[in-house]
Amino acid sequence: MLRIGLLGAGRIGIVHAAAITAHRDSALVAISDAFAENAEKLASQYGVATATSDDILQDPNIDAVVIATPTDTHSDLIEAATAAGKAVFCEKPVDLSLDRARACLNATKDSGQPVMVGFNRRFDPNFGHLKAALDAGEIGKSELLAITSFDPAPPPIEYIKVSGGLFRDMMIHDFDMANFIMGALPQTIMATGSAIVDPAIGDAGDVDTAVATLTYADGRIAVIKNSRRAAFGYDQRIEVLGAKGMLQAQNVLENTVVKSTADGVIGAKPTYFFLERYMPAYKAEWSAFVDAATGKADIPVSLQDGVNALAMAEAATRSLATGAPVRLSDLD
Amino acid sequence: MLRIGLLGAGRIGIVHAAAITAHRDSALVAISDAFAENAEKLASQYGVATATSDDILQDPNIDAVVIATPTDTHSDLIEAATAAGKAVFCEKPVDLSLDRARACLNATKDSGQPVMVGFNRRFDPNFGHLKAALDAGEIGKSELLAITSFDPAPPPIEYIKVSGGLFRDMMIHDFDMANFIMGALPQTIMATGSAIVDPAIGDAGDVDTAVATLTYADGRIAVIKNSRRAAFGYDQRIEVLGAKGMLQAQNVLENTVVKSTADGVIGAKPTYFFLERYMPAYKAEWSAFVDAATGKADIPVSLQDGVNALAMAEAATRSLATGAPVRLSDLD
Amino acid sequence: MLRIGLLGAGRIGIVHAAAITAHRDSALVAISDAFAENAEKLASQYGVATATSDDILQDPNIDAVVIATPTDTHSDLIEAATAAGKAVFCEKPVDLSLDRARACLNATKDSGQPVMVGFNRRFDPNFGHLKAALDAGEIGKSELLAITSFDPAPPPIEYIKVSGGLFRDMMIHDFDMANFIMGALPQTIMATGSAIVDPAIGDAGDVDTAVATLTYADGRIAVIKNSRRAAFGYDQRIEVLGAKGMLQAQNVLENTVVKSTADGVIGAKPTYFFLERYMPAYKAEWSAFVDAATGKADIPVSLQDGVNALAMAEAATRSLATGAPVRLSDLD
Amino acid sequence: MLRIGLLGAGRIGIVHAAAITAHRDSALVAISDAFAENAEKLASQYGVATATSDDILQDPNIDAVVIATPTDTHSDLIEAATAAGKAVFCEKPVDLSLDRARACLNATKDSGQPVMVGFNRRFDPNFGHLKAALDAGEIGKSELLAITSFDPAPPPIEYIKVSGGLFRDMMIHDFDMANFIMGALPQTIMATGSAIVDPAIGDAGDVDTAVATLTYADGRIAVIKNSRRAAFGYDQRIEVLGAKGMLQAQNVLENTVVKSTADGVIGAKPTYFFLERYMPAYKAEWSAFVDAATGKADIPVSLQDGVNALAMAEAATRSLATGAPVRLSDLD
Repeated sequence: MLRIGLLGAGRIGIVHAAAITAHRDSALVAISDAFAENAEKLASQYGVATATSDDILQDPNIDAVVIATPTDTHSDLIEAATAAGKAVFCEKPVDLSLDRARACLNATKDSGQPVMVGFNRRFDPNFGHLKAALDAGEIGKSELLAITSFDPAPPPIEYIKVSGGLFRDMMIHDFDMANFIMGALPQTIMATGSAIVDPAIGDAGDVDTAVATLTYADGRIAVIKNSRRAAFGYDQRIEVLGAKGMLQAQNVLENTVVKSTADGVIGAKPTYFFLERYMPAYKAEWSAFVDAATGKADIPVSLQDGVNALAMAEAATRSLATGAPVRLSDLD
Repeated sequence: MLRIGLLGAGRIGIVHAAAITAHRDSALVAISDAFAENAEKLASQYGVATATSDDILQDPNIDAVVIATPTDTHSDLIEAATAAGKAVFCEKPVDLSLDRARACLNATKDSGQPVMVGFNRRFDPNFGHLKAALDAGEIGKSELLAITSFDPAPPPIEYIKVSGGLFRDMMIHDFDMANFIMGALPQTIMATGSAIVDPAIGDAGDVDTAVATLTYADGRIAVIKNSRRAAFGYDQRIEVLGAKGMLQAQNVLENTVVKSTADGVIGAKPTYFFLERYMPAYKAEWSAFVDAATGKADIPVSLQDGVNALAMAEAATRSLATGAPVRLSDLD
Repeated sequence: MLRIGLLGAGRIGIVHAAAITAHRDSALVAISDAFAENAEKLASQYGVATATSDDILQDPNIDAVVIATPTDTHSDLIEAATAAGKAVFCEKPVDLSLDRARACLNATKDSGQPVMVGFNRRFDPNFGHLKAALDAGEIGKSELLAITSFDPAPPPIEYIKVSGGLFRDMMIHDFDMANFIMGALPQTIMATGSAIVDPAIGDAGDVDTAVATLTYADGRIAVIKNSRRAAFGYDQRIEVLGAKGMLQAQNVLENTVVKSTADGVIGAKPTYFFLERYMPAYKAEWSAFVDAATGKADIPVSLQDGVNALAMAEAATRSLATGAPVRLSDLD
Repeated sequence: MLRIGLLGAGRIGIVHAAAITAHRDSALVAISDAFAENAEKLASQYGVATATSDDILQDPNIDAVVIATPTDTHSDLIEAATAAGKAVFCEKPVDLSLDRARACLNATKDSGQPVMVGFNRRFDPNFGHLKAALDAGEIGKSELLAITSFDPAPPPIEYIKVSGGLFRDMMIHDFDMANFIMGALPQTIMATGSAIVDPAIGDAGDVDTAVATLTYADGRIAVIKNSRRAAFGYDQRIEVLGAKGMLQAQNVLENTVVKSTADGVIGAKPTYFFLERYMPAYKAEWSAFVDAATGKADIPVSLQDGVNALAMAEAATRSLATGAPVRLSDLD
């Protein structure tokens, strides 16, 4: 039984608490949150203790921690937790600063502790099925990847301001997905974007609609489309063209009912947002972490993966600012 | 060049005139219609002569006739035309009276003239593809056939009154389709129906919604659903379950555009009615007739096929009246 | 907290045990099974006691029982449990004998105890969405219902022999679904069927492929297609034509991935069988029972509903034997 | 009756000959081709004369010419034909040289003769439906356009060498489509590409897989994906995200048959290539030209439109070479 301390009892911490307690090989032991009320409410629901994060990190009865705190605490907590001998599951992104994330990677790489980064979409069963079919050669070698990732509605401007920008906050998921699907890092990233959904997002120095094009050493290309708003819900699709065909992972719909009337043939919308769409992924992600933390499997999404995606977000942010492509190697 | 006399210049005659003139091996020579104005209008469009049907039948320069006149003239015209040495294409149904249709079959079978009945749906490319896949064994032996056939809106009551009833007027197409797909005639037919779309149809002695179940000597079953009204348009689907899978021919849609909004994911409706849906079928049907009349191929839908479908309509009509299944052999 | 005794630890008992323990307002207390080993294995998994069914029925600490035993024990257990003051959830069918089921209904109707029958499909979210849209008038008044229900593969012949036949064992689900969708009982049922999938099923006196047509007092019609074998998996679809349109609940697919190659455009199959397709329904069903047993809601599927579906299965069985339609009122 | 001289009797000339003769208001009068045999074969099929292109241009009985000759003759022929008082329909591209095309535009703009460029895709009924829905405000203001355009297989290397490169030969269609959908020209174009389908294409100095990103003055973005090879056929899709939803024009399929087996649910492929997919578009395009040449409507795709698309191809070609975005205004 893997005993877990949960750091952070916000929206995503709540998701993890449910996954931890539902898994037969993990147990939730203690919860911390900067807002004591959050920690107490969640702890009460599961009948576990509240604690400070320091207490959790020092508790010899705790085997692993889940870091679901604000981003600017991630690197410090990863370092402290691995130093304390805990296995670590940390939400994305590792940090908003690529330098800090790289320092964290360096500081922890010799700890021997497994550190997994929460790129939940790798565990979506549909994307997993696509990846397996691609790796099995069902469409031959991949040539051109297209990722569509639209949120249903923009977050509050206050969130935008501290988010690190669309590339580090939103498209970072798609960068990781590109790494997952392509099995390699791109050489260059060219990004463009604008604040067309809401000018206030532009006033805050960010974009809400963006396209990034990634080129690979072997000639492959990937293109990622992001929008902060899709009136019909959360649009999460992947399409890979290969030498022998194409694979597409389409949206998960709310239901299978189709209504035909004089107005047309009307089907259900995609499931609304990430909690609805990716709930099975969160469960599978947690299961993968338990397997890794208990030595049954390798870490499926490493801290290096987290740093890689962040580097790509950094490159895209620079490309947007300069209007020119950025080589990943230029960030070294 | 097959020289054609067209008997009947109504809605379906107009369709045939277009097919005849578009085909490189057939030429429209003369048109007759009980309403001279109809004949003249169509003849003028194609620059051909008008004539009486007798003139057409006796014209040695005419090789074949298309019978697109009212149903109660079909049998007489088929007999007269074959006697006059013409190849015949006749619209469905052969007759409303099974006895009369059988007499016509007997009277013409030794004429040596090809007689084809206009069950256009056999030439729909989608149904044709389904039939070819079934015959190629792609789903193993067929076991259970389901035909859905809904019109967009009921015809006028005046038409209903002279139509011979839903089974002879509308479901007769589906009976022929069952014969086409199953490659055999059923043993029994059980039909039920009601006038739920429009009570006036019931007052006219007919039904507007009906289901017929057909059983076959080898244990196969077919079920046909008909409605005179589908608010979304013409619904024409076929589904065959076989030992190794299922084949479904779905509707042809007006376009491929899908709109996703807060209201749902909205696609196009089926093409509106038979002229839209089956225009390619009418062209292919005509081409098949030209091939048959010029000796290049066998008649794909024979007068016997027309009589068979009519017998099934007769059986269904009796079953509806008695509430019991009717054996086709009881009609002999 | 609703304390539950589970009678029967077979395949469906296991499903219920999971639902009971996952629900926050119900607790599994004891498990019985004629095969002690089954009960012990499941009891051990959930850390609860094993017991005899008598012990469970007499245990004052148990509020409700789930009857997941062989069908021939259902009526007796329902009567005993309600007499003992327990709320009852009983798997379908109530009994293979309509007379016995009716006697059970009579015997328990004054007990004041809620008795719910396990027609799980009513709780499928897709069918629920269709029903809600229909009741909201989105397609006007219903006119023609079609239910397609194919199992992936036939059960063992030994099961067939004791199943009561396809209509009581398999189509009973669809009869209940028709009652759910149409909101009324049919007047007549006409059924046909054959053993075309496996002659051994015919040798056992049953059919494996069947069609039933139901007529309603107001002129509506329903048609149900069943097959014991669909090579592509569990096919569970509902289609309702109404005055203003059509509603279709399509299959739930294994994933959303589509592969386009030179061979065609290939999508995922339906989820394999009832445990995969209806797992969300089993959970929702249990939740509905808990609400009913704790007085928060009415029983959504009553013992009367169970008797109604069984009467329809009886009528269909007779219709198959006689070749004629059977009026439900003839069974009184 | 618009009397037409056809210049060029190759593959696309044959398509136009069929459209010209099928239209009730246009007549094919004469055909020229550098290879006399081509002209004679086609002229013989339609019973018209062969001629030199000079003869056609000087023939006072000819009202309009269709230029379907090799690209390097387009500008000269457009100039000569307008000078001779003919209406002109010219295949795309106007020229491989932007300067030459601009000179042609200047030389002909005062002629008063209608000149239409053959961007056939604007007349595809599906794209037309999408455009109409967008213009009707059905998804609000457009924000992000994505065009997917894959050919089934690359052309011969000999063709590649004289094609002007993928951007001028293939993506030029998509550039025009972007102009059609967006109703504005982009400010910048950033293109990337590689020869991953066939290294011989790279050896010939071209790419076979490419992505171009277009940015607009008002913040809108468009992205175009091209591949010379899609194993499943001709992939032609358009997707527009707007403030209130999304419009997608999906592929036209070969048929509507779906086969479900143990291997999956298999549907038809897209129609194979441009002749199959766009035949209705070629007919509608011709009809639009006849309307324009007879003064009934404006020219729907002007010579300016042809120059615009060529300028975009030029910009993309430069961007590929330099690795940097190119402003369209830099080409002036």
